[in-house]
Amino acid sequence: MATVTLISDDDANPEVRAVFDDIRATRGTDFINNFWRALAHDPALLKATWERLKVVMGNGALDPLTKEMIYIAVSAANACEYCAHSHTASARAKGMTEAQYGELLAVIGMASQTNALVSALQVPVDEVFKA
Amino acid sequence: MATVTLISDDDANPEVRAVFDDIRATRGTDFINNFWRALAHDPALLKATWERLKVVMGNGALDPLTKEMIYIAVSAANACEYCAHSHTASARAKGMTEAQYGELLAVIGMASQTNALVSALQVPVDEVFKA
Amino acid sequence: MATVTLISDDDANPEVRAVFDDIRATRGTDFINNFWRALAHDPALLKATWERLKVVMGNGALDPLTKEMIYIAVSAANACEYCAHSHTASARAKGMTEAQYGELLAVIGMASQTNALVSALQVPVDEVFKA
Amino acid sequence: MATVTLISDDDANPEVRAVFDDIRATRGTDFINNFWRALAHDPALLKATWERLKVVMGNGALDPLTKEMIYIAVSAANACEYCAHSHTASARAKGMTEAQYGELLAVIGMASQTNALVSALQVPVDEVFKA
Amino acid sequence: MATVTLISDDDANPEVRAVFDDIRATRGTDFINNFWRALAHDPALLKATWERLKVVMGNGALDPLTKEMIYIAVSAANACEYCAHSHTASARAKGMTEAQYGELLAVIGMASQTNALVSALQVPVDEVFKA
Amino acid sequence: MATVTLISDDDANPEVRAVFDDIRATRGTDFINNFWRALAHDPALLKATWERLKVVMGNGALDPLTKEMIYIAVSAANACEYCAHSHTASARAKGMTEAQYGELLAVIGMASQTNALVSALQVPVDEVFKA
Repeated sequence: MATVTLISDDDANPEVRAVFDDIRATRGTDFINNFWRALAHDPALLKATWERLKVVMGNGALDPLTKEMIYIAVSAANACEYCAHSHTASARAKGMTEAQYGELLAVIGMASQTNALVSALQVPVDEVFKA
Repeated sequence: MATVTLISDDDANPEVRAVFDDIRATRGTDFINNFWRALAHDPALLKATWERLKVVMGNGALDPLTKEMIYIAVSAANACEYCAHSHTASARAKGMTEAQYGELLAVIGMASQTNALVSALQVPVDEVFKA
Repeated sequence: MATVTLISDDDANPEVRAVFDDIRATRGTDFINNFWRALAHDPALLKATWERLKVVMGNGALDPLTKEMIYIAVSAANACEYCAHSHTASARAKGMTEAQYGELLAVIGMASQTNALVSALQVPVDEVFKA
Repeated sequence: MATVTLISDDDANPEVRAVFDDIRATRGTDFINNFWRALAHDPALLKATWERLKVVMGNGALDPLTKEMIYIAVSAANACEYCAHSHTASARAKGMTEAQYGELLAVIGMASQTNALVSALQVPVDEVFKA
Repeated sequence: MATVTLISDDDANPEVRAVFDDIRATRGTDFINNFWRALAHDPALLKATWERLKVVMGNGALDPLTKEMIYIAVSAANACEYCAHSHTASARAKGMTEAQYGELLAVIGMASQTNALVSALQVPVDEVFKA
Repeated sequence: MATVTLISDDDANPEVRAVFDDIRATRGTDFINNFWRALAHDPALLKATWERLKVVMGNGALDPLTKEMIYIAVSAANACEYCAHSHTASARAKGMTEAQYGELLAVIGMASQTNALVSALQVPVDEVFKA
């Protein structure tokens, strides 16, 4: 159903296999989700995307669960079905509770509503908000 | 520059003034930002939006700073200039560090990139992600 | 400030001038707004866009004011500053009251909120909604 | 297929059941569509969303059919599959004719086209459009 | 699954049939894809959309393959499932190689990422970029 | 006007300065545009973004001008003012003619229109388009 076939382990060339191996090692699971199997048609794009994602989503000044919730928020705003599913699953795997998920949804809904109101009204930015 | 004039305190009718008073009391500041002054043309819309926002953005299962960062993420995805400015200012007022802001930006960028790749490739949702 | 200069009446070639004349005659005003002056760099694009817009926005099964409000709704969702301003001005010129504008904004806000909730939750379409 | 299971009547707690009862009474039908069954995981979010929607979509300065068409327009711009289906069904239930639907689609298409042209060209807002 | 039924050849009225005939003649195939069969509920919208598309996507200063790739880029940004599928198929039919597709995806991903960063940061336009 | 100050050459730390030097060397100009000066608040994000952009936008299976036009298309769909300006300037610097720009705009407009029609109609993907 994708615009490309999904690359199985058997079809993976060595460059793709190396990325799949690193995904497995990093995540501690044998499972490779469809996003990576679709990207694998272009090994350079697969590798660049995975290596950047690994850095960005790791622990840092923000914890990984907070990052997953931010990812869900962007994905909802962009109407990305796959991304909503995959990152909600990731957030739950990292401990997101139902109460947190409910509040995340409420903030996404609120922000979307005021974004649209501002876009319709074209509210000028207050001077005090400018850096 | 908005599609409506901004309602000053002097122009506010009693219903608007009551909302402005509650914004001031809730936030502990005399400042009312332009969004509320634009919405004030429709007192019912102003009141409903503010009362919901007050609930949604308060403390709960997620802390207020996390909520502001989620708000920024949605606003960036929706290309909302005013919202990016106002919620970045709010996040900083609630303690967002430059390191946290940098990571927030990195997650927003990463999510936007993979959202677009998924949209182009139309990757099917993995069975394991379905609730 | 556009990516192209705006074509003045003096700079307009005969094909552009013919479109400008038709805009003036159709609208009963001498004023040509910047959108058409920017598009005029490509006379064929200008002509095709104007001729289609004239048909689409005219009277029909929906009245012109309803069409302007629908236009504002799409423009708000697409975060189009120019379009929000120009079509709000058009809607007012066609009689939109402040009460109607307030309700239009409320619907735009509501729809944006539930669109985002649905995108986050990926709610499956009920069978009864399918044509 | 949603990121949450859909709450059946049997699974509904009293707070959810009260909202479901109000939806049924307001709409004069026993049918509860999936959106509300998904939101029901967070009873407070369900209640706040429904109570606001009931006010916003009711009769007022704009009639309910016009509001449904505006809702469709926003939903199309936001690429919301569920919302396009559910609000097109609602609009038809409120009397939208095929001729009206055709014109609605034409306006949505026209607005989306000119929104994108304006975004590419970054046309500056005419002074006369500013409130 | 559309909000309308798809118009078969047997159901097509003469105006619709004329457009279907022109699509077949222009493309050198008997196949009419679902988009046109859905639009056919409004023959005037069908005709206007097809006649414009035929002009826009033909050969000119840009070759048809480049135009298809631009179409894919817009469709990905707008999260349009149908459009991603149909225009990727068209691009391949016009000779898009897997290497070109990979680079197209990489540019779409890069642009989406920097668009979002700019939206979050609200970077002011450099003077030298203004026309 | 950004949410951060723009980092001047004098304020740049060695990591930032190294990226600025590479931008100058790669582009053969002393000019550093505001996007990089805003990103420079987070040297790691600056470096990762620039290094990826340099690879993605270089010559390959698609020529750099085609890539810039694809970038403009995504940026228009995402309503990114800065990106529309900067990449239109880049495309012109790489030889985009006015005729090519006009056709690019026409394709962006066409795609945006049909994307929205498809989103409203929820047209099912034809079997033949599936990979």
